[in-house]
Amino acid sequence: MEPKHAHAPTVTIENFHPSLGASNYLIKRVIDEPLDVYADAFTDGHIIMCTLLKWHKAGDTRWTESPMRPMENDRWQGRCSFPSAGRWEYAVESWADSWLTWRKHFKAKFDANDPELRIEAREGAKLLDQTARRARTAGASSSSTELLELADMLRRLPPGELIDVIMGDDLQLIMERFPDRSLSTTSEVFQVVVERERARFSAWYEFFPRSAEGRADRHSTFRDCLARLDDAKSMGFDVIYFPPIHPIGVTHRKGKNNTLVALSGDVGSPWAIGSAHGGHRAVEPALGTVEDFEWLVGEARQRGLEIALDFAINCSPDHPYVKEHPGWFHQREDGSIRYAENPPKKYQDIYPINFHCEDWKSLWRELIDVVLFWVERGVKIFRVDNPHTKPVSFWEVLIAEVQAKDPDVLFLAEAFTKPRMMQGLGKIGFSQSYTYFTWRESKHELTEYANELTQGDMRWYYRGNFWPNTPDILPHHLQHAGAPSFKVRAALAALLVPSWGIYSGYELCENQPLPGREEYLDSEKYEVKGRDWNAPGNIKGFIRELNRARQDNRALQLYDNLKFHHCGHDQIIVFSKVTPDFSNRTLVVINLNPHDTASAMVELEMGALGLAHDATYRVRDLIHGGGYQWQGASNFVSLDPRGAFMHLFRIEL
Amino acid sequence: MEPKHAHAPTVTIENFHPSLGASNYLIKRVIDEPLDVYADAFTDGHIIMCTLLKWHKAGDTRWTESPMRPMENDRWQGRCSFPSAGRWEYAVESWADSWLTWRKHFKAKFDANDPELRIEAREGAKLLDQTARRARTAGASSSSTELLELADMLRRLPPGELIDVIMGDDLQLIMERFPDRSLSTTSEVFQVVVERERARFSAWYEFFPRSAEGRADRHSTFRDCLARLDDAKSMGFDVIYFPPIHPIGVTHRKGKNNTLVALSGDVGSPWAIGSAHGGHRAVEPALGTVEDFEWLVGEARQRGLEIALDFAINCSPDHPYVKEHPGWFHQREDGSIRYAENPPKKYQDIYPINFHCEDWKSLWRELIDVVLFWVERGVKIFRVDNPHTKPVSFWEVLIAEVQAKDPDVLFLAEAFTKPRMMQGLGKIGFSQSYTYFTWRESKHELTEYANELTQGDMRWYYRGNFWPNTPDILPHHLQHAGAPSFKVRAALAALLVPSWGIYSGYELCENQPLPGREEYLDSEKYEVKGRDWNAPGNIKGFIRELNRARQDNRALQLYDNLKFHHCGHDQIIVFSKVTPDFSNRTLVVINLNPHDTASAMVELEMGALGLAHDATYRVRDLIHGGGYQWQGASNFVSLDPRGAFMHLFRIEL
Repeated sequence: MEPKHAHAPTVTIENFHPSLGASNYLIKRVIDEPLDVYADAFTDGHIIMCTLLKWHKAGDTRWTESPMRPMENDRWQGRCSFPSAGRWEYAVESWADSWLTWRKHFKAKFDANDPELRIEAREGAKLLDQTARRARTAGASSSSTELLELADMLRRLPPGELIDVIMGDDLQLIMERFPDRSLSTTSEVFQVVVERERARFSAWYEFFPRSAEGRADRHSTFRDCLARLDDAKSMGFDVIYFPPIHPIGVTHRKGKNNTLVALSGDVGSPWAIGSAHGGHRAVEPALGTVEDFEWLVGEARQRGLEIALDFAINCSPDHPYVKEHPGWFHQREDGSIRYAENPPKKYQDIYPINFHCEDWKSLWRELIDVVLFWVERGVKIFRVDNPHTKPVSFWEVLIAEVQAKDPDVLFLAEAFTKPRMMQGLGKIGFSQSYTYFTWRESKHELTEYANELTQGDMRWYYRGNFWPNTPDILPHHLQHAGAPSFKVRAALAALLVPSWGIYSGYELCENQPLPGREEYLDSEKYEVKGRDWNAPGNIKGFIRELNRARQDNRALQLYDNLKFHHCGHDQIIVFSKVTPDFSNRTLVVINLNPHDTASAMVELEMGALGLAHDATYRVRDLIHGGGYQWQGASNFVSLDPRGAFMHLFRIEL
Repeated sequence: MEPKHAHAPTVTIENFHPSLGASNYLIKRVIDEPLDVYADAFTDGHIIMCTLLKWHKAGDTRWTESPMRPMENDRWQGRCSFPSAGRWEYAVESWADSWLTWRKHFKAKFDANDPELRIEAREGAKLLDQTARRARTAGASSSSTELLELADMLRRLPPGELIDVIMGDDLQLIMERFPDRSLSTTSEVFQVVVERERARFSAWYEFFPRSAEGRADRHSTFRDCLARLDDAKSMGFDVIYFPPIHPIGVTHRKGKNNTLVALSGDVGSPWAIGSAHGGHRAVEPALGTVEDFEWLVGEARQRGLEIALDFAINCSPDHPYVKEHPGWFHQREDGSIRYAENPPKKYQDIYPINFHCEDWKSLWRELIDVVLFWVERGVKIFRVDNPHTKPVSFWEVLIAEVQAKDPDVLFLAEAFTKPRMMQGLGKIGFSQSYTYFTWRESKHELTEYANELTQGDMRWYYRGNFWPNTPDILPHHLQHAGAPSFKVRAALAALLVPSWGIYSGYELCENQPLPGREEYLDSEKYEVKGRDWNAPGNIKGFIRELNRARQDNRALQLYDNLKFHHCGHDQIIVFSKVTPDFSNRTLVVINLNPHDTASAMVELEMGALGLAHDATYRVRDLIHGGGYQWQGASNFVSLDPRGAFMHLFRIEL
């Protein structure tokens, strides 16, 4: 017999919701976002239990506490929220409450006119004495005095004169402040990562700084990027994401359109990092200097923008690490270093890192320090390239350490791989994640996938960031239908979830693919691009309206409030997003078909909108202006791809 | 940066099935019963993984291992079983396999006629060298030599002469035996409690030894119980369960029919334990001595029966503990000891124990020693009275300690309370549990409840034991319909699950209730009962047939193989139990209505029976003899409460 505690556990506390299944997994919140916690707590015997939720910043010794509410079948519910960014913890504490149990029994005996009430009253007096002692220890001397006086009353007066005091709220309020928790049980502790609101609500604009001026004949620099920043700002974006800005390797540099041999003047892929000019702490000389970059970060900040860097752990054969730390790479039998491959394919311009090499501790230290280097230079968001090809445990350590230094730093996982890995990266701490949205086309696919992300267990740890395109991906559905398809996909990305992003050129409806592929022709990854940033037919105005509506409507800034509504037409998708208090209610109706007009009745779940089933209400279109008087659940819409192909309604009464 | 392991974790292993949600919860198995374990295991990069399930008896350092099978989406499946009773552990270990990955890459490069194959072959040779070293360490010197020779070949011969050897099964078989697990990751460890088969398959017969002879005028003794044992044996029972056999208290002893004042000669309730004759280590003198009891245990054993004792932690005011350890009870303000109550109700013949008193460690020690005392006297099964009114942690410690001393000891929880507590007692180790079966009457209720127990997560930790009656419960449905209702309820209890039991008198269809209550009139709890154990109208023959069929049909001895089939008639319930290999297939059809004949088509799910949808098969009735030639899913039945009210079919081809 070896009980583990000073007293044996008295309460079983289990079946937590949410629960991610492992003690190192992190539930995500943004600052002040409430978290509802459910747990079963039960004990033996016929007693009254008290259960509370308690939470604190990891490392603190004191807890904030709040009582949990009993529900059916031993289930309890409590709510907490976290006022600052960082790692937090919560737990549930529960005990059989001797005062409440005594009080209930005293009342029952009083009602039954029990002859032993005087003894019972004396037992109550003892509980008051003990509570008085706890009150005094807690510094509440007036409560303590009051309790001692009441205890004295309980010992002196007949039960008939006591019952109102005993059952009264005044006494109960004091007793609740100083309960006897000496036999309480505390549950396991859950971890929460709390981040600033941008972790949940963000609009990203990706561009290659070397193409900032849109001149194919000239490599732009950081100093040339202000116009791009201003343009992104006017479209309503708040995060500017740059592909890697580091020196680009020369050995085995790729040519235009990913050819194996670079011609003179070919600029190479920014993801082949490292040259004689330095590695992950340096910048490509053609872009300028670290100081130039810092200047640009400051310029962005003044505009209310922030610059996100790409953290790509790819080393070109010319990276300084190769000479300084050959042990960090995979050695081959002939003494050479193993380049990346997926046999029979070879990627000779990239040397993968051996994360489990003998010297792994100094390797991990260095990579974490690289991130901290850029954090010190003002970068607070990192888009992480292919995190799924590096150890999950590495990211867990890196994110924890960086956020311990600066909890405002956010990480976006660019993992397009199997579901468990994508989920796992979210569970150990990535703030946001790329998703399969890019390939979800039909109403059924979109509904199912958006529900999986925002309504299932993933909502606790995985914040999907929706991108209609990336430098690597020009999906089929954008290749053939021009601006209407770009608008549909932008609207879906921007409105289904609170974080979305585009890779530049999207606003110009660029849609020339490599023949038969879902990739761009003349990919910007391998060349400086010429562009007219205000080319005719652009959809910058539409994007601006989308982002403005997101800024103006709190409901569009939340993640797990997505609700699909029925529409019999298989090309019309209908969803609402409302705030929990119904103070802001948005309703989105989109014709997914970029070619043909679609008309149908939409069938709203009125309860989800906080409306009576027969309510009359106004829907105001935030994109196209105007609006309608609607009544009840069934209302008619007609959506023309060449005009109002969608409605973004605000519901007003 | 503070990684916890010598190397950082390389594989994420999670989402276990089964999983009970807390590290101290025990998955249940009986000896040699297979356990299928599922888990997700994934890692970074394009490698081939190996994953294995490993298990051992708790405390052992060596593991038994078996490879897990990859399924879709990083899920793996493995199977283990446990050859002896006791606590076992299992875990999953997984790693990126350098040999298999190299082999796949070599093949791809070979097929692509890669010019660097010679270097690759040398890298393979290095892997063979390393494997040879592991083989030698493991004492497999001939394998080691063979591998070194092959390594030499790989270094010397051209790839074209190597490919068959490299891809061959011979080499693979050796390599699999000595994999490089230096970078493997092992999951959390799961606990299993393995018990003898009786934990799953048992038939209980409860009788009061003081009424063994059926003479109201005479208190029977242990020495008078042989006829009862023989009768129970002939009915096919294997566990004889006695209510508490200890000295019965005198103070506040209850009279017949639970009256507050006992008359002279009233024998009292066996659950009010303790008198001047002793406490939980003593026996009621009117029953005999501890030696008499041990003699009876031996007689039972010779008959293939075992005797289960009631472990009821109730102390009468006369229990020796009251004087010796007043601190183990709840003290009142007037110095008296608090009796049991549920205000305003009082139970003055019982003093409840204070499990969290100051001296709790010696209290728990003593109670565990009481159980061990009876274990030493040959008792290997305990029916625990009201475990839900004592701390769950107490039972956890008690069961662990008793089973560590003797893993053959089984515990049946008599908890009729809210679901979480009943489940919790199962999770921490009770071998079997009472259930709500007693009050589940309709086809819908029975189906839903039996499915909940045997098909949901409860099947991993909760073995329901079905009782149609107990000394406390004579349910309404047994009070008015005579023998047919007793037969229906016996058949349901005996066939839905592999453990069932009756309280004696059931076989005589005793059904006199306290008016308006679900309790027995003249309850045997408070008096010695007179009975004709062979009274006319008894159903002993039917019970014998039920238990015989259970003995003869392995499918009826399993717990989680229950499958309900459709029948349009709402009084006809249809279920099958088959062995996983279909070597034994039973099909049960019962008319729940004890008054009227019911006829209908039953609709079988043929796949669940291992039958083709149009199969022709024979169903042989194990209760009534005879049988039918059936074909396909739909077949006719007609069930008469006065005759063949049910079929217990064995399916034969």
